Amino acid sequence: MKKMNYDEVMAKEVGKGCKGVTIRWLITKEMGAENFAMRMFEVEPEGHTPLHSHEWEHEVFVLEGEGLVMAQNGEEMLKPGDVIFMPSMEKHQFKNTGPGNLKFLCLIPIHE
Amino acid sequence: MKKMNYDEVMAKEVGKGCKGVTIRWLITKEMGAENFAMRMFEVEPEGHTPLHSHEWEHEVFVLEGEGLVMAQNGEEMLKPGDVIFMPSMEKHQFKNTGPGNLKFLCLIPIHE
Repeated sequence: MKKMNYDEVMAKEVGKGCKGVTIRWLITKEMGAENFAMRMFEVEPEGHTPLHSHEWEHEVFVLEGEGLVMAQNGEEMLKPGDVIFMPSMEKHQFKNTGPGNLKFLCLIPIHE
Repeated sequence: MKKMNYDEVMAKEVGKGCKGVTIRWLITKEMGAENFAMRMFEVEPEGHTPLHSHEWEHEVFVLEGEGLVMAQNGEEMLKPGDVIFMPSMEKHQFKNTGPGNLKFLCLIPIHE
């Protein structure tokens, strides 16, 4: 077993197409995970992730804050406890629309 | 995209070896997830999951409550924001040691 609190993991700035976004890699291949990785994103007020698509899916759980997610079938408001399955190749973007940080887990598959 | 709040997903009793435990299957193969599934567990005060091991790993994020996780290398206290990687085949058990419910996400791989 490996155990830590998320705040022991360094938050790194995410550049390219992002505004005010950090990522913490919580569970990784290097830690022994062979199938999927757990990351935490934190988006500052008025910040956003890029509008993009990619071959891997996302599994998201919203922890704190308010925001919205835009995808091919429109946009949805986000609040704590919300769960999102974003399929492979669907264009998407997360935005913070609230006064505090928007914090969510985002898991992705690990492929060799 | 598929989006819901966790409280829209039915909590089902988990029997065998558990005491006071429910599970919500938040993201599943049936929903289109091909690689891993997201579940939420809720453990009542004095409740616990079974002491068991299995071939699949767990990736856990603690959302609410207090508890402990027992594994082969001893036991660890749990609080919100804690992250656990439980490797395949390691014996483990989660217990609620607090006055309120212990709530955590637990993700597992999906194999064909």
